Amino acid sequence: MRLVLASRSPQREAILRRLGLSFRVVVSRYAEGGDGGDGPERLALANACGKAREVAGRARLEDGELVLGVDTVVALGGRTYGKPRGAAEAGEFLAALGGRTHHVHSGLCLLDGGREATAAARTAVTFRPLTTETIGAYLAAGEWRQRAGAYAIQGLGSSLVTAIEGDYWNVVGLPVAALIGLLEGFGTPPLTWL
Amino acid sequence: MRLVLASRSPQREAILRRLGLSFRVVVSRYAEGGDGGDGPERLALANACGKAREVAGRARLEDGELVLGVDTVVALGGRTYGKPRGAAEAGEFLAALGGRTHHVHSGLCLLDGGREATAAARTAVTFRPLTTETIGAYLAAGEWRQRAGAYAIQGLGSSLVTAIEGDYWNVVGLPVAALIGLLEGFGTPPLTWL
Repeated sequence: MRLVLASRSPQREAILRRLGLSFRVVVSRYAEGGDGGDGPERLALANACGKAREVAGRARLEDGELVLGVDTVVALGGRTYGKPRGAAEAGEFLAALGGRTHHVHSGLCLLDGGREATAAARTAVTFRPLTTETIGAYLAAGEWRQRAGAYAIQGLGSSLVTAIEGDYWNVVGLPVAALIGLLEGFGTPPLTWL
Repeated sequence: MRLVLASRSPQREAILRRLGLSFRVVVSRYAEGGDGGDGPERLALANACGKAREVAGRARLEDGELVLGVDTVVALGGRTYGKPRGAAEAGEFLAALGGRTHHVHSGLCLLDGGREATAAARTAVTFRPLTTETIGAYLAAGEWRQRAGAYAIQGLGSSLVTAIEGDYWNVVGLPVAALIGLLEGFGTPPLTWL
C-alpha cells in the first residue's frame, strides 16, 4: 500500500512520514471552491474530493496506490479564515481568534481505481486572550505566513492555545485518526504498514 | 528571563526550544514519590515541586532565572501507568489503554529565590480499540521505551489515538498552556521572551 498525496503542504508530508506511511506527492490542479453557504465541513469535503479525483484522473496509479485528498478550513462565527494576505490581515485574524474557541474542519478523500471513501474531522481550538504585545511578537516571528487562520499550533502558536478538543494533527493539517479509519476500511489496520 | 529545567526529558527540552524559551538543564536528584492514595494530580504536583526545590537549593541561580519542575502521570481506572519495564509490560499497558479514555496529569512548579507557583493540567486521551496485530507492530517499532503509558503521542503513537481533550503538549510531556500562565504570573506575557 502506498499513498499518493494530492497536496503540496510540507506539514501533511511530515505527518505521513511520522506515521511511517509510504507515499509520493502529486500536487493537485483542482481549483478550490468557496463556501457557497454549505458550511465549512461540506466545503472541506468537496475540496478534498476535488483534489483527489483530479490527481486520480491524471496520475498513473500503480497497484496498491491510494490517492489522498485533504482540505482544511478554519471557522469561527460563520466566517472562514484562510491564509492571510499580509501581516496586517494576520493581525486581524489573531485578534478575532484571541480569547475564543474556533473550529478546524478537515475533509479527507481516499480513492483507488474503484472505491472512494471520505471522512470529516472537527477540532475545537481555544485561544487565550491575546494582548497586542503578544500578537505583535507572534507577527514579528513570521510564523503566520502560509497558515490558515494565521497560526501554526505546532510552533510558537502553541503558546497562543489553552486547549483543544478533538484530533491535534487535524489542526496541524491532516486528521490522523480519520485517516487511520479510512485506511482500515481499505484493508490496512493501524501500523500494519510498518 | 531564563528557565532552569529540573528534568532530563528530551521531549521537555524540545518543547521549550520550540517555544523559543531560553533555558538550561539541571537534572534533579529528587526521588519521586508514589501515589500514596492522594490521586494522580496531587502526586504530579508533589513530584514537580520536589524536583524544582531540590534544584533551586543546589544550583546557583543567576538573576532572572526561574526553576521549572515538571512531573507527568498517566492514569486510568484508579491505576497509574509509568514507564514499562519491558516489552511484555508495554503490551499489557497498551492492551489496558486500548478502546478507552485515560488521563494524563501534569504538575508544574515554577520558582525563583522568593516565590513558588504551581499549576496542574489534565488531558483526556482516547485510544482506538487496539488489535493484537496493531499492538505487536507498535511494540516492534520500539517507541514504547522510556514512555509513561508505553506510547508516544508525537510519534507512531498518534495512530493509536482517536481524540484528546485538553493540552496536546501535556501528553508529550510539558503542558504549554499551564506553563505560559505561570510565566505570565511572573511578569512575562506570551512570546515577549522572543
